[in-house]
Amino acid sequence: MNLKGQNILSAKQFDKKSLLELFGKTVEMEKFLNKGRFLKSASGKILATLFFEPSTRTRFSFESAMLRLGGKVISNADMMKTSSSTKKESLCDTGKVVSQMADLIVMRSAEVDAVAKVSEKSDCPVINAGDGVDEHPTQALLDLYTVWKYRKSLDGMTFGMVGDLKNGRVPHSQAYLLRNFDVKFVLVSPAGLKMPREIVKELLDLGVEVKESEDLFLEIKKMDVVAMTRVQRERFESEEEYMKYDGSYVLDKNMMKRVKSDALILHPLPRVNEISVEVDSDPRAKYFEQVKNGVALRMALIDAVLKG
Amino acid sequence: MNLKGQNILSAKQFDKKSLLELFGKTVEMEKFLNKGRFLKSASGKILATLFFEPSTRTRFSFESAMLRLGGKVISNADMMKTSSSTKKESLCDTGKVVSQMADLIVMRSAEVDAVAKVSEKSDCPVINAGDGVDEHPTQALLDLYTVWKYRKSLDGMTFGMVGDLKNGRVPHSQAYLLRNFDVKFVLVSPAGLKMPREIVKELLDLGVEVKESEDLFLEIKKMDVVAMTRVQRERFESEEEYMKYDGSYVLDKNMMKRVKSDALILHPLPRVNEISVEVDSDPRAKYFEQVKNGVALRMALIDAVLKG
Amino acid sequence: MNLKGQNILSAKQFDKKSLLELFGKTVEMEKFLNKGRFLKSASGKILATLFFEPSTRTRFSFESAMLRLGGKVISNADMMKTSSSTKKESLCDTGKVVSQMADLIVMRSAEVDAVAKVSEKSDCPVINAGDGVDEHPTQALLDLYTVWKYRKSLDGMTFGMVGDLKNGRVPHSQAYLLRNFDVKFVLVSPAGLKMPREIVKELLDLGVEVKESEDLFLEIKKMDVVAMTRVQRERFESEEEYMKYDGSYVLDKNMMKRVKSDALILHPLPRVNEISVEVDSDPRAKYFEQVKNGVALRMALIDAVLKG
Repeated sequence: MNLKGQNILSAKQFDKKSLLELFGKTVEMEKFLNKGRFLKSASGKILATLFFEPSTRTRFSFESAMLRLGGKVISNADMMKTSSSTKKESLCDTGKVVSQMADLIVMRSAEVDAVAKVSEKSDCPVINAGDGVDEHPTQALLDLYTVWKYRKSLDGMTFGMVGDLKNGRVPHSQAYLLRNFDVKFVLVSPAGLKMPREIVKELLDLGVEVKESEDLFLEIKKMDVVAMTRVQRERFESEEEYMKYDGSYVLDKNMMKRVKSDALILHPLPRVNEISVEVDSDPRAKYFEQVKNGVALRMALIDAVLKG
Repeated sequence: MNLKGQNILSAKQFDKKSLLELFGKTVEMEKFLNKGRFLKSASGKILATLFFEPSTRTRFSFESAMLRLGGKVISNADMMKTSSSTKKESLCDTGKVVSQMADLIVMRSAEVDAVAKVSEKSDCPVINAGDGVDEHPTQALLDLYTVWKYRKSLDGMTFGMVGDLKNGRVPHSQAYLLRNFDVKFVLVSPAGLKMPREIVKELLDLGVEVKESEDLFLEIKKMDVVAMTRVQRERFESEEEYMKYDGSYVLDKNMMKRVKSDALILHPLPRVNEISVEVDSDPRAKYFEQVKNGVALRMALIDAVLKG
Repeated sequence: MNLKGQNILSAKQFDKKSLLELFGKTVEMEKFLNKGRFLKSASGKILATLFFEPSTRTRFSFESAMLRLGGKVISNADMMKTSSSTKKESLCDTGKVVSQMADLIVMRSAEVDAVAKVSEKSDCPVINAGDGVDEHPTQALLDLYTVWKYRKSLDGMTFGMVGDLKNGRVPHSQAYLLRNFDVKFVLVSPAGLKMPREIVKELLDLGVEVKESEDLFLEIKKMDVVAMTRVQRERFESEEEYMKYDGSYVLDKNMMKRVKSDALILHPLPRVNEISVEVDSDPRAKYFEQVKNGVALRMALIDAVLKG
């Protein structure tokens, strides 16, 4: 699959071959990153970031990637407050207009499908940097890259996802990517925050083994990857419902004793208290390294979209 | 007229010769734009954007232009919320201070004359990117460039302006630029939103033919250029007054049937509903192409101001 | 003292030798600035600016410095509104995360010690661009550089500080830097806004001559440097207390008659009315030139931190 000129809207777009190609390219980008040199690969190109939902981490990651590739950046960190969206311009028009001034758009929105709408009339490729509870494909890409980097393969693993799998866009994108590999899923979440039925059904239809559970203590022992996400209090129907789970999805030193010795702990960050600070120094904790991998992965992705 | 080191505060500053020079330079810049290469013309120079009134489109256009010229950008997208203006620094001081750190300032404000105040003590040139209901000279420049690009001349045309000509800063700047050419004006607006009397008087004193009307349906047939602008509901004195005009200044497929076959439709964007989406694919519709022309025009202007 | 890889959190870190080295380096940077050329010294490096308290002036100064050094910038002008700090990420995590994407962090905060917290886990150096009422080391550095540039020495001078010396972070940092030189202090402030006792005690313990007073009219005659700061009305306990001082710390043409003919007037800006506009043209007024010196000083500092 040639990514040149393609929109990157969903993790569904990637097949195994394109993922492995992207990961190989990311390895190359990491080498340049570590040398601390700017490339010239994106020279002449301008990236526009349109963040309708602010996010320093993701915006910085894309901007850092583009700048390191030798491209340049025009940036709107808070579209809701500082743009024509307040003048009621349609998202289609916004995409059409910004694409006259840029060669690539990276967009985040709190609304499902908003990124797709911007891409509709855009004359340049659009990358989804998170669209509501829908997807966050590049986060899932860097998650899997981090695993692949250590394991050299994704096949044969048991991939655990923990937390709010209903509203978490990262687990959704992870699931779509992982369909390409021979993995088992262990999905641990409160009863009301389970992975959407259609995603689970798709996996089952493909013959994938999926275990759903509410019990992290029990299931964590099986996981080769523990992909954590936040469980937000406001997602629960009642305070009693929340209290039932309070603390049970917290990864602390005690819980880490139950985790496989060669497992990898992932988290898209920011974390609040779902991973204790005491875990940070554990060699299995990869969530800060993921941030750095994310710059390299996005360099590879941008390069592929701009140049093929 | 040599623009080197000049503030660009008003469309009044331009005579025919300087406009044609600028348009010629813009043609060159468009070529570079289309090649997708960064120039080195502004290497060593820093542009500061100071937007007291947020605008993604105009800010991106200037920043994209500066970056493509090889210059760099420091940017404040929302001066009202993130600057010393909240600490009550005078605009004169702001200009003096920022000009110690930049080689060029591009500023937008909701207040008439604010840009002029910033330019007063500035040690570097200041470009007006819109100052309240006063002017928006670079938008008018790119409007006329778009016409000139297709017609190779502005003389002999009937230039129609439609919408809120009282509060629209773009029509004001267009009028000042068009004084340099042999054009007829057809000004179509609600009775309470007519072009300011002093501008009309100036045109008449120059011997220019000016027709004012409230009837777009009637007048649109005469226009070689249809320069649309938004009519905002809140500008009307009463709901009844607004309802009188509601819909009558909307350019839709039906209205387009009355437009000359070689006319050009302009709009500074964002549009809300004053031009129907169905018109976008009409070859006469140039409002999205204008955005791209705007980058090239601003490259030419910045280059002229920095280097002459 | 080699600054390579060091955090710059406090003016206390600098000794006389390192200050004079930095000033020497700043002279070189000023030469490049005046030539209007970008250097390549910071090529391959990315600066992240994290402003939890917005400030156009200081942010622009650091960004302009980094860009002129050939580095690139990723910028958050308003962390409180557009970042994960709203999702309750700890400052330690923020530092750790951003340092995976950047080679240098410049941070401002309204909270004392917030910058230190970000630096704790950061994998790259962090520069304090103002942390609450605590310190603003780079402002003090450029203040002293400005004096040194004109006097070629700081020894033997009487350094006057005027205004709110209690809450003003700049006077605190100035005092820490000036301990390295043979200067006398004249500290002029309202009774309730005096320099913190611990700073005065430190100076006295070092054998430094410190005169504290409420009477600018009397003391200004002795000063070789008049370092002004704002006195904010809301700092006073009552309106009566404020009125006692109202106007008495205003530097106007009359007050300037009492200032030594070769004295230097400094101000970190923005000023409101504590220095009259009529003073701006006085050759002793250096507060606008300071802004330009600040870019050169920060170029030298960033270069020293990145390369040693």
